[in-house]
Amino acid sequence: MMKEQRPANSTDPLLVSGNLKIQAPKQLMDSTKLINHFSKHIKLTTDEIELINSLFSQRSLKKREFLLKSNQICRTESFIFSGCLRTYSIDENGFEHTLTFAVEDWWTGDLLSFLTEMPSFYNIVALENSEILQITKMNLDKLYVEVPKLERYFRLLIQNAYVTQQQRIIQNLSQTAEQRYLAFIEKYPAFLQRISQKHIASYLGITPVFLSMLRKKVSRW
Amino acid sequence: MMKEQRPANSTDPLLVSGNLKIQAPKQLMDSTKLINHFSKHIKLTTDEIELINSLFSQRSLKKREFLLKSNQICRTESFIFSGCLRTYSIDENGFEHTLTFAVEDWWTGDLLSFLTEMPSFYNIVALENSEILQITKMNLDKLYVEVPKLERYFRLLIQNAYVTQQQRIIQNLSQTAEQRYLAFIEKYPAFLQRISQKHIASYLGITPVFLSMLRKKVSRW
Repeated sequence: MMKEQRPANSTDPLLVSGNLKIQAPKQLMDSTKLINHFSKHIKLTTDEIELINSLFSQRSLKKREFLLKSNQICRTESFIFSGCLRTYSIDENGFEHTLTFAVEDWWTGDLLSFLTEMPSFYNIVALENSEILQITKMNLDKLYVEVPKLERYFRLLIQNAYVTQQQRIIQNLSQTAEQRYLAFIEKYPAFLQRISQKHIASYLGITPVFLSMLRKKVSRW
Repeated sequence: MMKEQRPANSTDPLLVSGNLKIQAPKQLMDSTKLINHFSKHIKLTTDEIELINSLFSQRSLKKREFLLKSNQICRTESFIFSGCLRTYSIDENGFEHTLTFAVEDWWTGDLLSFLTEMPSFYNIVALENSEILQITKMNLDKLYVEVPKLERYFRLLIQNAYVTQQQRIIQNLSQTAEQRYLAFIEKYPAFLQRISQKHIASYLGITPVFLSMLRKKVSRW
């Protein structure tokens, strides 16, 4: 694979402060956030950081641009550097149902499609202009072999995501729409400023009209 | 820790066929199923199997016996050797909501409580006489240090569980109760013979009466 030379005036702190011999990835990429995220859970050596940089590529998405459309195979897992993406399905009546919102420092992708290489059931669209760092299945498998401690990082990551999903399932089973809305704004206060009411309603499993009623009721408290 | 001597007439295939120097755990324990489960994803050495055996303990649960009650801290993760357990919450009106059923070769526990050592929101009860192999957080943390490749096993395990949960969330958002019932019996046909209609209804988020109507409708096809 051809590698471009990283320009001398790069603002990548890894290059500037660490004086590391980094193999520049295909695109000029600031992987600091990703490396910091890994480093919350595992310690990486200079060589390992270099390898990670060589296996990820950066992509920009404009607002409303799709990262994935249903029936496509999800070929990459994506770490969100900046922006916000929504994963949703469309039912047989044309209604949209939101599975997840993902913002900076989160990962997104359709894990089932990524792992099985089968067509996805989901669409993933940028709700804002977004910058992501992507890795293919082949490169991630290579990374697990070369840097086995990344198993730990991804084990911890998916454990947290699993627990969050579990809370959502039990809330769906046991709580009223109002309770679920209050839990949502408590857990994700910043989402209210960034995500439309229509999309939040489709996450909570209610209509936008009903969400509007709930908001009015809650604001009167 | 005191170790009992494993009796010569043990039927543990690891001991009989492999002629391994196994340190007998506190209780006489057949860990074959657990080791086989690990071995689907990772290769274990004799020493590693020995360590695993020393860190798990076996427990028998009678039908209706509780593995965990809400407000207790979930101190162990449990691999089910035989039997069936149900994880559920009870809402403020006294209604039960089933989060999971788990049968042989599955794991159970409240992961959030186990990780954070905070009181659990859930009850876990045996629906049948069950045999489980349990590990404490301290011992599991030790195991991750001593046998890092177990990170991979648990990463793959939790990935699969995550994807299954994701499908349940999107089904809850987008499907009718009838569609969810049909998806349930397709995914878990054996559960229909083992688990009461009342508990299946509480998993699907419908009343037992409504489930009974659905079953009659489906059986007429």
